Amino acid sequence: MPVNIPTTSRPRVVIIGGGFGGLELAKRLKGLDVQIILIDKNNYHTFQPLLYQVATAALEPDSIIYSLRKIFKRRENVIFRMAEVLRIKPELKRIETSIGEIFYDYLVIAVGTKTNFFGMRDVERNAMRMKSVPQAMELRNLILESFEKALLTNDVQEHERLMTFTVVGGGPTGVETAGALGELKKIVLPKDYPELDFRRMQIHVVEMNGRLLGTMSESASQSAKRFLENFEINIWLKTKVVSYDGNVVSLSNGKKLFTSNVIWTAGVTGAVIPGLKPEALLPGNRLKVDAYNRVEFHSNIFAIGDIAAIITEKTPKGHPMLAPVAIQQARLLSQNLRRLMSNQPLKPFRYRDLGMMATVGRNHAVVDFHWIKFHGILGWFIWVFVHLMVLVGFRNRVVALVNWAWNYFSYDRGLRLIIRPFKDEKFS
Amino acid sequence: MPVNIPTTSRPRVVIIGGGFGGLELAKRLKGLDVQIILIDKNNYHTFQPLLYQVATAALEPDSIIYSLRKIFKRRENVIFRMAEVLRIKPELKRIETSIGEIFYDYLVIAVGTKTNFFGMRDVERNAMRMKSVPQAMELRNLILESFEKALLTNDVQEHERLMTFTVVGGGPTGVETAGALGELKKIVLPKDYPELDFRRMQIHVVEMNGRLLGTMSESASQSAKRFLENFEINIWLKTKVVSYDGNVVSLSNGKKLFTSNVIWTAGVTGAVIPGLKPEALLPGNRLKVDAYNRVEFHSNIFAIGDIAAIITEKTPKGHPMLAPVAIQQARLLSQNLRRLMSNQPLKPFRYRDLGMMATVGRNHAVVDFHWIKFHGILGWFIWVFVHLMVLVGFRNRVVALVNWAWNYFSYDRGLRLIIRPFKDEKFS
Repeated sequence: MPVNIPTTSRPRVVIIGGGFGGLELAKRLKGLDVQIILIDKNNYHTFQPLLYQVATAALEPDSIIYSLRKIFKRRENVIFRMAEVLRIKPELKRIETSIGEIFYDYLVIAVGTKTNFFGMRDVERNAMRMKSVPQAMELRNLILESFEKALLTNDVQEHERLMTFTVVGGGPTGVETAGALGELKKIVLPKDYPELDFRRMQIHVVEMNGRLLGTMSESASQSAKRFLENFEINIWLKTKVVSYDGNVVSLSNGKKLFTSNVIWTAGVTGAVIPGLKPEALLPGNRLKVDAYNRVEFHSNIFAIGDIAAIITEKTPKGHPMLAPVAIQQARLLSQNLRRLMSNQPLKPFRYRDLGMMATVGRNHAVVDFHWIKFHGILGWFIWVFVHLMVLVGFRNRVVALVNWAWNYFSYDRGLRLIIRPFKDEKFS
Repeated sequence: MPVNIPTTSRPRVVIIGGGFGGLELAKRLKGLDVQIILIDKNNYHTFQPLLYQVATAALEPDSIIYSLRKIFKRRENVIFRMAEVLRIKPELKRIETSIGEIFYDYLVIAVGTKTNFFGMRDVERNAMRMKSVPQAMELRNLILESFEKALLTNDVQEHERLMTFTVVGGGPTGVETAGALGELKKIVLPKDYPELDFRRMQIHVVEMNGRLLGTMSESASQSAKRFLENFEINIWLKTKVVSYDGNVVSLSNGKKLFTSNVIWTAGVTGAVIPGLKPEALLPGNRLKVDAYNRVEFHSNIFAIGDIAAIITEKTPKGHPMLAPVAIQQARLLSQNLRRLMSNQPLKPFRYRDLGMMATVGRNHAVVDFHWIKFHGILGWFIWVFVHLMVLVGFRNRVVALVNWAWNYFSYDRGLRLIIRPFKDEKFS
């Protein structure tokens, strides 16, 4: 059954995914004489780099997401549909979705990635993840509930289990989450739970590679490691998680951690939609695209952002999975689609690397620019400034600023709330 | 099994419920040489009068709730436990909870009310309620999803079903909800859904009695009715809901409304905990208390707020279920507990009626003070001011102010977000 969408004689561009890439592309196609169908399973854009702040009670969920309809309310040629895409049918130029079939002239896949557990079913079943707002809210619930539960017992082993937090993955998300947990331990939670002995709260970071923040500079890695170790966070490098049954996580170095809180930030895999030729799929489920972001072996299908990999000598594994890459690819694609429709030659993608930054804790961020690398309080202020600027929407910026300022000056987190339906509480 | 709580030689006051009454009492008992155990099934206080604003995308959920631990973090003699109370055992001076048994010297029941469907099972199954933050968030989801679904069809009857909203109950919550829906219809949603014909969106208010806002003045009722009717809201007075199967709501006047959105604000019943003598229970499940808020036929058990009814000639059905009543009873009880412990005579409750107010829409609130009754934009500013002042916590006040100012000046609602786990999205 076809979806109920206004018919058009204009070419139709279907964009799957309202993340950084899809959103930027739909914005940039303004003025082009096409009908744009934007599809996302949520009715909002998620500012993913700040999910860890929701999970650690620093930001309100609603201030890092933004209504997609609101963004496009003055764009008559952008039609949004909240749906899941089930299959691509390139031979028919159609996609099958949870709300029906949609025809396309040009298809842009901007679906990003999903959490990858590398086949470890027990870890998948028992670890917490952090790729969406509901997941981040649930993580916030679970972190706080661990302490509520710890209050109910004097059993030392049970305290250890409930108050041990294991962050798997030492990339930016893992480091930022560990730093935020360290702050909760030192500054926030002891006031809430005076009955608990917070020397018993342990935080571990498990990283497969030889250093934290492997995609950043050596000095950034060193600085992050020192900062986390000052918070008495245990860092396990060159170490993998082998198994996790919900109580004990086993590491490849033989160590066993007794913990009910495992946060998995250690890997992603492309959120591939069935229907494309298997030859277009690279390891890690990324789509092989040419320099113009066209999916190989397909015509009129493009992929941008984390799901896409432009393989060159300089980028044998594709570009890093970062918002700036997705946004730059979206910008170029918006130009290339115009060129394509007017039969002009396309321009290849060239990544303008703006550097990277990660915040490790209060007053401390690491910043790698090309021309300078530094860390500390200046880095932290730059981090806050940059993230405020790129948050979509004035309201969200003000609310995030209020929260950050509040946290900063009060040494507190205002959002220590366990929000969930109570037992069999009825909703509807 | 007893709960793990620090033992004490001081008398123990157990307060069940962290609403307006329980919260105020725990605050006011400061300095008294007792151990206070505060129990709530949530770890936060909910500002219930603003739940309808969360449901209609005007306020963020996190800005109308406040961490209970945070409120009492500097009060060493207040111990908070997140738990459900299952039974009171007056003969043993114990309560049975989801986390174990707790002994009390003095017990204060401040559990409030829950939604009452008067035995109509089909309505209970199919209508939405609005007594907690998860319910209000779910209502927000469902309202927005109705429009997402309406987009998917051209069927006129299906549009009618999805775009018809029936608010049952014409008290403050019903009137405020209907007014907020009217604003969404006129100002906000047409921009989001240009494909839909919003003349088809119908809003109904069904009220059993002869006027809206029955507890307020006649002039307030008239003003609210006029204002809602200007928004083309249909008001059915002297009308009851007879049945609702999820698609059709039948009214006592024979009218049938085809609607998938029924919001039930028409009645509450005391959230009674088993174990008390049946003689202490009044119709509507309120607890019969004397002028000192002592539960009849029990010693050392008190009840305050909506669950308690002081029956006198002037108040044959008890006092109105309002936050100021709960707060004033809590203040008096904090003094009476001191008097009780020092064998002084207790003072009876006397309600100081501060008046009532309800907001009906943008720039329009009705205000009943003793000495003056008025409505319109001045009422609305007073409403905003009073509600800002009583919201707990500086951060919450600032965030609510940002949201209200944003809504006011932009004619918009920033929070049109459907937040829920996607299908089988894994949490933990």
